[in-house]
Amino acid sequence: MTTYDVKGMTCGHCVRAVTAAVQQVDAQARVEVDLAAGKVQVDSTMPAPAIERAIAEAGYEAKALS
Amino acid sequence: MTTYDVKGMTCGHCVRAVTAAVQQVDAQARVEVDLAAGKVQVDSTMPAPAIERAIAEAGYEAKALS
Repeated sequence: MTTYDVKGMTCGHCVRAVTAAVQQVDAQARVEVDLAAGKVQVDSTMPAPAIERAIAEAGYEAKALS
Repeated sequence: MTTYDVKGMTCGHCVRAVTAAVQQVDAQARVEVDLAAGKVQVDSTMPAPAIERAIAEAGYEAKALS
């Protein structure tokens, strides 16, 4: 489980866009978005840089925290 | 052309959601969204209450101004 700091999420559409972006690189990924906190928890076998890139391609700044 | 005050739009996804909501009730409608101002201009033959209802069903508060 890795937590990402994600900037730019403002609404429920953003939550779905980030979730879909992660699940495009790993369909099995479990994704939990905390919109208010700007945090996304991802449970995935993909390395953090791939997750960060997927979120970035959806238009948000993502940085793995742990 | 009617201008609507629309509350709750925060990002480009919201702009697309509002535009799609209006075009679902009138596929020919021309829709221009000013996200920063919270204003939506709609050129449509549909009456304002129908447009307001469509936007409301997409999750935003809409009120015709003129």
